[in-house]
Amino acid sequence: MTNTEILAAFAANLKYEQIPTEVVRRTEDLFLDWFGAALAGRGARPVESIQKLALDLGPQSGPCEILISRRSTSPLFAAMVNAAASHFAEQDDLHNSSVLHPATVVFPAAWAVAQALGRSGKEFIAASVAGYEVGIRVGEFLGRSHYKIFHTTGTVGTLAAAAAVGSLLRLDEVQMLHAFGSAGTQAAGLWEFLRDAADSKQLHTAKAASNGLLAAYLAADGFTGAQDILEGVKGMGAGMSAQTDPQKLVDRLGERWALVETSFKFHASCRHTHPAADALLDVLRREKLSPGDIETVVTHVHQAAIDVLGPVTDPKTIHQAKFSMGTVLALAAEYGHAGVHEFDAHYREQRIAQFRDKVSMVLDPEVDTAYPARWIGKVTVQTKDGETFTGRIDDPKGDPGNTLSRAELEHKTMTLGLYGHAAAEEEIQHAIASVWSLTDYPVVPRLLPEVSLESHHG
Amino acid sequence: MTNTEILAAFAANLKYEQIPTEVVRRTEDLFLDWFGAALAGRGARPVESIQKLALDLGPQSGPCEILISRRSTSPLFAAMVNAAASHFAEQDDLHNSSVLHPATVVFPAAWAVAQALGRSGKEFIAASVAGYEVGIRVGEFLGRSHYKIFHTTGTVGTLAAAAAVGSLLRLDEVQMLHAFGSAGTQAAGLWEFLRDAADSKQLHTAKAASNGLLAAYLAADGFTGAQDILEGVKGMGAGMSAQTDPQKLVDRLGERWALVETSFKFHASCRHTHPAADALLDVLRREKLSPGDIETVVTHVHQAAIDVLGPVTDPKTIHQAKFSMGTVLALAAEYGHAGVHEFDAHYREQRIAQFRDKVSMVLDPEVDTAYPARWIGKVTVQTKDGETFTGRIDDPKGDPGNTLSRAELEHKTMTLGLYGHAAAEEEIQHAIASVWSLTDYPVVPRLLPEVSLESHHG
Repeated sequence: MTNTEILAAFAANLKYEQIPTEVVRRTEDLFLDWFGAALAGRGARPVESIQKLALDLGPQSGPCEILISRRSTSPLFAAMVNAAASHFAEQDDLHNSSVLHPATVVFPAAWAVAQALGRSGKEFIAASVAGYEVGIRVGEFLGRSHYKIFHTTGTVGTLAAAAAVGSLLRLDEVQMLHAFGSAGTQAAGLWEFLRDAADSKQLHTAKAASNGLLAAYLAADGFTGAQDILEGVKGMGAGMSAQTDPQKLVDRLGERWALVETSFKFHASCRHTHPAADALLDVLRREKLSPGDIETVVTHVHQAAIDVLGPVTDPKTIHQAKFSMGTVLALAAEYGHAGVHEFDAHYREQRIAQFRDKVSMVLDPEVDTAYPARWIGKVTVQTKDGETFTGRIDDPKGDPGNTLSRAELEHKTMTLGLYGHAAAEEEIQHAIASVWSLTDYPVVPRLLPEVSLESHHG
Repeated sequence: MTNTEILAAFAANLKYEQIPTEVVRRTEDLFLDWFGAALAGRGARPVESIQKLALDLGPQSGPCEILISRRSTSPLFAAMVNAAASHFAEQDDLHNSSVLHPATVVFPAAWAVAQALGRSGKEFIAASVAGYEVGIRVGEFLGRSHYKIFHTTGTVGTLAAAAAVGSLLRLDEVQMLHAFGSAGTQAAGLWEFLRDAADSKQLHTAKAASNGLLAAYLAADGFTGAQDILEGVKGMGAGMSAQTDPQKLVDRLGERWALVETSFKFHASCRHTHPAADALLDVLRREKLSPGDIETVVTHVHQAAIDVLGPVTDPKTIHQAKFSMGTVLALAAEYGHAGVHEFDAHYREQRIAQFRDKVSMVLDPEVDTAYPARWIGKVTVQTKDGETFTGRIDDPKGDPGNTLSRAELEHKTMTLGLYGHAAAEEEIQHAIASVWSLTDYPVVPRLLPEVSLESHHG
């Protein structure tokens, strides 16, 4: 069997009963975290644009909920809109070593299809785990050279979504392999948009979730795909990576649960900023410094941070500011947390811009070598008094070694839900309760009641 | 201005009045040719699968016709299904130097949107020309190294469709550039499926047409894309080609009409087989040989022919047979033409398989150097009598230098329309008349009446 066949068979055969309890619980955590991220996308122009087109070009009703509007549509378009929404606020989860944001592609597709097919909470959990395990391994397989040009969450996300949806469609091993083929040959997403702060990031997740869903539906209907879309001589590895790592594709399947390695985002910014932000917070707390005391901050980073954040020197939008190392460190220094509210209220302020310009990035061999398996944060802080302090964080807040508690996740979800005015407090409470008891549902519920938003927030 | 900006501005500003009459006429020819190719896709399993999903996941009604079923839906799904249908029978057109099949991605998107917006025949023509001119130049820009791994019609087709739809949406230069950005970052399609004779070819065109359409609609709604998706350091050229040719992007815009360089397909097979098939027919006619006289045929080909056709040694399906050099030459030798009926009736016959096994491919430096600008056909035929003949064709039938007449195009269209039982003879006649008078329509018509197929062919 090829590695791709082994991986497809794993996804096709994974049952809820095989999944350790702590993995199930963590899946619930990640799902709740995703729900908050999706709600926070409400009102964002690119997200609303995608929703408008989904409702213009797709069905105006259906069995699946669009979280930001409480509208309903077909699974394809619910997946599309919820995926776009959940990748806007830079609050969705990230798996370190694959540099994949799994939640924003797996859950929109799986949740829509579970609703469309009336699957149980347990089946939804198993499908989501399949999506995470597949996506993470494919991301690790394609590696750093892929991520240099391609937005892994867009490309690999297509396969992750296909695996999750394929599980819910109860594809057999052969069909799942076809689904992988049809997903991989649709895989797309280039980083070029980042320099222009263009809206492609949400398009990538929208299309990854919906294209992966389409691939699995096609496979269920007998549509065939390439048998080795990952390692074949004209496959993804050959065309979209300079150095693949085939062993990663099947790395300890069923023993290593890669899902639990996924990090929650504490700051509402690009994950590449988090290690340095936390290292700076460490220095400020330890040395009892305030932002005004600081002359310069040198962040010691991995190459990908320079690649992704380097072009952003003078952020023009909130979204771009989330990719500005200096802005993120300025907000963290000032408010202890660079959250959605901190960005909205302060990212343009003179004070923040001044601090931003004190921050630089330098490539650090130790950090770069450890990346992407570990995201180490290191800063050197020079004070106006001429003192020099160094800070270091081995597990940024939200990483598996420093994860968020259920109370912290509930707080984050409530903050994000209210931030986008997507739901009332009691509705969010109700959704939280639904997620914590998801495995009890013989048929997955709606997370939010299908009501006109105007009656709640008009 | 960057090359991409110049190209986007050209697409945004192209008006019907600027297009020479012979280019308009040729566009009508290509559109009719596409219509026949689309009808021929009716009943093909992969095409019907895509239609089934389009109607399950998309709207069940709308302003746009699905040619193979006479159903109506939204422009997104009409584009998707018509694109899938028109790339099945291997009868759709090809532009040589870009190795792009423009019709199958440009016309489905443009026709659907022209119907949705009620645009005139002239606007539809101008939009289609924009799609061809953009797509061909982007294909030439990405070049041979791109085509080695990526199915150019899938990847570049996304931009071609976006340009055509953008024209119909009357995007300005800035919006068109955003549409290009959103199209390019969705561009996908890997050749890996070919080894397995999988169904991805139709998925590629379906997604190119619909994704390009989506990109243009998003741009019309203010959604932004990368400003240099083609030449940017993390754009298509950087990620998906080993050697680009930037000058090709803006090659004599408005002077060179690349559309008229497009070839019609005479044989119903992969275009890489056509030069050798015609060269063989040349030998057979000249020397008055019959297939039974032949011991071996050596075809002297370009490398891409070996790449695409080489893996197909024992075709298992009609579609795969269209990528078998030996099968195509066998059918051409036996019947003078490897058309849809010849494939259906004979591709599996012992006699055809025996001839097939007499055919080999060798790389020819002259042919390879001329490719892809020119597709030269050269064969060496050895007879059972021990004689050796060589055949050569500089312009395979259907090439601009040896194009099909309107009478031949009408005949091809009728053959393909009846082949798929997609329409009655008088309906096809009516559609042909509509295409020849397209520029007279203030609002584009339907090509086929919206009636239940059962009443015609039940």
